[in-house]
Amino acid sequence: MNTKTRNAFWEGLFWIILIAGIYMSFGVYAKGSKSIYIGLIAGIMALLFAAIKTAKIMSKNKGSDTMAAISNHIYTGAMAFLKREYKILSCFVVIVAILIAVFLNIKTSICFLCGAFSSALAGFIGMSVSTKSNSRTAHAAGKSLNKAFRIAFNGGVVMGMTVVGLGLFGLTLLYLIFKDYDIINGFALGASSIALFARVGGGIFTKAADVGADLVGKVEAGIPEDDHRNPAVIADNVGDNVGDVAGMGADLFESYVGSIIAAITLGALCLNLMGAFLPIIIASIGIFASIIAVYFVRTKENGNPMLSLQIGTTGAMLLVLAASYFFIKSWFHDLGANGIFFAILIGVIAGTLIGYLTEYFTSYNFSPVKNIAKSTETGTATTVISGLDIGMLSTFFPMAIISIATISAFLVIGGMESYTLGVYGISLAAVGMLSTVGIIVAVDAYGPISDNAGGIAQMANLDKEIRERTDKLDSVGNTTAAIGKGFAIGSAALTSLALLCAYATVVNLSDIDILNPFVTSGILFGAGLPFLFCSLTMGAVGRAAGKMVNEVRRQFKANPGIMTGECQPDYKKCVDISTKAAILEMLLPGILAIGTPLVVGLGTAALTNKIIGAQALGGMLMGAIATGVCLAIMMANTGGAWDNAKKYIEEGHFGGKGSAQHAASVVGDTIGDPFKDTSGPSLNILIKLMTIVSLVCATLFIG
Amino acid sequence: MNTKTRNAFWEGLFWIILIAGIYMSFGVYAKGSKSIYIGLIAGIMALLFAAIKTAKIMSKNKGSDTMAAISNHIYTGAMAFLKREYKILSCFVVIVAILIAVFLNIKTSICFLCGAFSSALAGFIGMSVSTKSNSRTAHAAGKSLNKAFRIAFNGGVVMGMTVVGLGLFGLTLLYLIFKDYDIINGFALGASSIALFARVGGGIFTKAADVGADLVGKVEAGIPEDDHRNPAVIADNVGDNVGDVAGMGADLFESYVGSIIAAITLGALCLNLMGAFLPIIIASIGIFASIIAVYFVRTKENGNPMLSLQIGTTGAMLLVLAASYFFIKSWFHDLGANGIFFAILIGVIAGTLIGYLTEYFTSYNFSPVKNIAKSTETGTATTVISGLDIGMLSTFFPMAIISIATISAFLVIGGMESYTLGVYGISLAAVGMLSTVGIIVAVDAYGPISDNAGGIAQMANLDKEIRERTDKLDSVGNTTAAIGKGFAIGSAALTSLALLCAYATVVNLSDIDILNPFVTSGILFGAGLPFLFCSLTMGAVGRAAGKMVNEVRRQFKANPGIMTGECQPDYKKCVDISTKAAILEMLLPGILAIGTPLVVGLGTAALTNKIIGAQALGGMLMGAIATGVCLAIMMANTGGAWDNAKKYIEEGHFGGKGSAQHAASVVGDTIGDPFKDTSGPSLNILIKLMTIVSLVCATLFIG
Repeated sequence: MNTKTRNAFWEGLFWIILIAGIYMSFGVYAKGSKSIYIGLIAGIMALLFAAIKTAKIMSKNKGSDTMAAISNHIYTGAMAFLKREYKILSCFVVIVAILIAVFLNIKTSICFLCGAFSSALAGFIGMSVSTKSNSRTAHAAGKSLNKAFRIAFNGGVVMGMTVVGLGLFGLTLLYLIFKDYDIINGFALGASSIALFARVGGGIFTKAADVGADLVGKVEAGIPEDDHRNPAVIADNVGDNVGDVAGMGADLFESYVGSIIAAITLGALCLNLMGAFLPIIIASIGIFASIIAVYFVRTKENGNPMLSLQIGTTGAMLLVLAASYFFIKSWFHDLGANGIFFAILIGVIAGTLIGYLTEYFTSYNFSPVKNIAKSTETGTATTVISGLDIGMLSTFFPMAIISIATISAFLVIGGMESYTLGVYGISLAAVGMLSTVGIIVAVDAYGPISDNAGGIAQMANLDKEIRERTDKLDSVGNTTAAIGKGFAIGSAALTSLALLCAYATVVNLSDIDILNPFVTSGILFGAGLPFLFCSLTMGAVGRAAGKMVNEVRRQFKANPGIMTGECQPDYKKCVDISTKAAILEMLLPGILAIGTPLVVGLGTAALTNKIIGAQALGGMLMGAIATGVCLAIMMANTGGAWDNAKKYIEEGHFGGKGSAQHAASVVGDTIGDPFKDTSGPSLNILIKLMTIVSLVCATLFIG
Repeated sequence: MNTKTRNAFWEGLFWIILIAGIYMSFGVYAKGSKSIYIGLIAGIMALLFAAIKTAKIMSKNKGSDTMAAISNHIYTGAMAFLKREYKILSCFVVIVAILIAVFLNIKTSICFLCGAFSSALAGFIGMSVSTKSNSRTAHAAGKSLNKAFRIAFNGGVVMGMTVVGLGLFGLTLLYLIFKDYDIINGFALGASSIALFARVGGGIFTKAADVGADLVGKVEAGIPEDDHRNPAVIADNVGDNVGDVAGMGADLFESYVGSIIAAITLGALCLNLMGAFLPIIIASIGIFASIIAVYFVRTKENGNPMLSLQIGTTGAMLLVLAASYFFIKSWFHDLGANGIFFAILIGVIAGTLIGYLTEYFTSYNFSPVKNIAKSTETGTATTVISGLDIGMLSTFFPMAIISIATISAFLVIGGMESYTLGVYGISLAAVGMLSTVGIIVAVDAYGPISDNAGGIAQMANLDKEIRERTDKLDSVGNTTAAIGKGFAIGSAALTSLALLCAYATVVNLSDIDILNPFVTSGILFGAGLPFLFCSLTMGAVGRAAGKMVNEVRRQFKANPGIMTGECQPDYKKCVDISTKAAILEMLLPGILAIGTPLVVGLGTAALTNKIIGAQALGGMLMGAIATGVCLAIMMANTGGAWDNAKKYIEEGHFGGKGSAQHAASVVGDTIGDPFKDTSGPSLNILIKLMTIVSLVCATLFIG
């Protein structure tokens, strides 16, 4: 039996198991109170699917020795980063687990450990597979666009499915064991801790490498991007995976888990077990739908990869909506079923709208980015101003959508009659939005794989035709990354709000009243925090990139053979610098995110009383969410728009490559780098982590 | 009797009247319920003092014919702008007055008209005097630094005293007439309308002229700044006055009046007449203190003008504190007096701290700006990143100060025992902070006068020694402008919060609860508004500057005699372009600021009920205040820091003028222009105007 037949056999077997799983889920378990088992089944299905896809990718040809060697450098670099990161992380996690066990309880501590372990494991698996898919994608590009496209996408699917599989399986299992939704908040906190390291540390890693590689390589030494002579090139390629695979994965893992837990907490309050189980079932439907939709994603030789990816995500969403509709109708026989369904629908629509808006503001097929490209004609200053202008404009609409979606989800489910039900509706909207995270992470993680494949094709001097194919795949990556970011921010906003409600419920707060000066002060203080956080992370990139620049200069000077191509540069050293800088520089932002809620909450409590302390903390969280989400959108979109304005010019518009306009657009792109890949996404973590820390420590505020 | 003797006579007479006034105030009226008359006396004193100073300035020599001609161009340009602006403004004000009369009541409408008229009159007087002081300052610089310094500062004093004089006199008189604090809110709304035109329109005017003049003049034609051959030079000089005299004056007029009215409203609720009168008395003390402190401001030939100005503002603050302490002690005999005094003290300290912080982050005497200057060594991108980094960092601290000040003012006055008293304490902190606005506006308006004087010295080719003196005066202007902006933002934040409390009181809202999804949605929606507003105003500057560029190019082309110096360019046409653009482009932001609160509030009310509508609106205001204040600080400080980093390099550091580093710093400065002079300050207006519109229309939400 050759590899191809073996893979087909396993895939066929998987489909049989999948159909059996879906039958068990909705034919057997869904009728009784055992419906929570569906979460376990769906989680296992996702993990099995990831395993099948991994085997399939591994069976593909790695390409020439050069290609395999480059890919191996990237893989080794990625593993070196993860190893170092996870070492520090383990210490951190163990200390926090002990603190939780001492000050809260041992069960929460166990959940915390599980959450941290699951998210870290997902990151490890995703990074391993993505860094092994790149040369295989490049090699397959020699055959056809679709073959290469499928490998890159499947590499992303492994990450996506591992995230939702471990997330849903883990939290369902813990819920079954502890039967207490307060306890499983620890799982979300664990996930948050990893997200902090992966997003903030990862964001610093990737941009230090990117900016450092560009500043010396492109600007000083005059060698092209992704040139094998650049000592920082491997670090740069590793960084792509660190940011868009591990970082995005951990970020969405946290949102996914957080939103489901919040919905369980609120659902149990207003609709008992059925309310608590529904979010798990919707998430399960999302997994099944994502698995099926993966098969929709394929392209033709002259096809548009972006369209294929959109068919995949849209298909998954439609499947979720259809299946949810029938399930909810049969579960909640009465009229309330419509309201519950509409709440989920609103979440799905809001997520889709934010995605389209992000595309509109950051893709060069539309006027905003074209306008930025045009503004390069009047110089760098106008390029920067028009980028910020577009970025700020693009901030308002997602905020309005989130605002309207929140209120609509509250109203459709009947929030005017029952407040708890209404808030449950809001949390269901978040679950609905996040139900297809499996395929959304897949689309996002596809980006760095095809980017790396392009880099390998360049470094290994592959044929022009192959490079054109990898370029085509890569060009989509910018837009998918931007859309993924918009989605991550939107979901972080909804998740934080849901967690904030859960926090207030646990502390049993009657209100968090803006007219209470402690709350107002909290809001103002909280509003300033994201700015401080951004300043810290932007400064971190600057410092780390500076170190990288010095190292690359040192290598070029110490070893002239590098430039002539006689010697290989010391790639490892550069990976090492980015790794060390990332871990060192995330310390302060991390302390800020974890410490501030405790200091403000307990400080105010000590000054007045526990209730006021909890209210002031609630205000602070709201303030941080408000400015954090705005700033995150603004930075992600501004950066994405600058990046694509540069790409647009490079395609020959407004003077093309090498023109003064191009130089101006490069400046915009460089400014946008820490915006969109470090500071902006890190804000998602800040707002979620602060809320989840408050939620887990809520008992400290109970009189 | 020569001019000097006559001036001395009038000044002596004024002092006799002043002492009589202070005696009447605190010796006679303060004892009884007539203490409110103190507000009238103080207001008249301020206006008399402005008149004395105007006469003194007018008696000075205008300088050579060339100087007088240039000054006259600026004066004519400024008047042309005001005339056009006030024409549109009149229509707007009359329409709004009719709407208020129809939908609310005629008394509020009258107050509205008075408020609009007073603020417009203050702007007119201030602009007239400042644009007549510039050539006199330049001429006096031929004699001594102190003589020139005194004229420029006195020019500012006229604006400062007119603002506080008309403000306090107007609102006290209206309070005496209508005896209803709800009604006099119309006065604040009137002031807000003018502030909208002066700050937003003015901000667009000044930067369109500045950027337009620089882009063609400096960059394309290669002529220096402030060159008389540049057709946009007069518009640029007019713009300085429009921004820092009329704009800042109207902004602080609004804050001043708004904070006093909010304090009156809250004071009447908790301490009856004494509580209502106290803010007026504190404001009166502030006026007397500012008048006296004006005499502290003088410098030596080798002195530091900045220090003199600081002695003036600090002196005024100390006088206010000392006088308030004794007054409050004698008025509120019981222990509560300490709490009341401390609330005021906290406001004064907070204002001072924000000022110092702004100076730290924007002056090149400290490390932040030096670091930005250093980052020019690695190019434009790092210059922009480090500027934004510093700007974001500088945002957190004022937010923390405002937050802590709010809570402290609430606590010291006894807010834990009586909520209303606590909120009154917060409003008193705002009044305390704003009590010395007279001298603060004077210091700010000093900037454009000395800047213009420098321009005139340059255009009229005055001696090097004279230009060195005007340069010295001008160099301080950047820092005073930045500090003034920080103060304006801080006071706008406190004023908006106080107005928000007053709004809730009038609607009789029991709470604005974050846990209410309508409030949460309101916060998120409101949080996005400042970003939209910034995008609109930044775009406006870009479009208007584009028109200016075209006009300057046209003139150079149509009339080659301009460059050779044979013909005079058509200055008027450029002023006209800026004027038209300013008025056209402020339409949309204006509608946004006025319309959004009504649409959101009444829309939600129609969808649910009036109470929920009012609460959603409250949330929206809070969200807008939170992000608006952050963004305003960020933009003002980033812009100020870039400006001074450029100045620092121009003084010979990091390569000096003409180096690549200088070029990078010029880009930063250009990006910072709309940041610090248009979008940032306009946000003050957005948050205040939206709150005051809500307050005035509060009755629409009462069931």
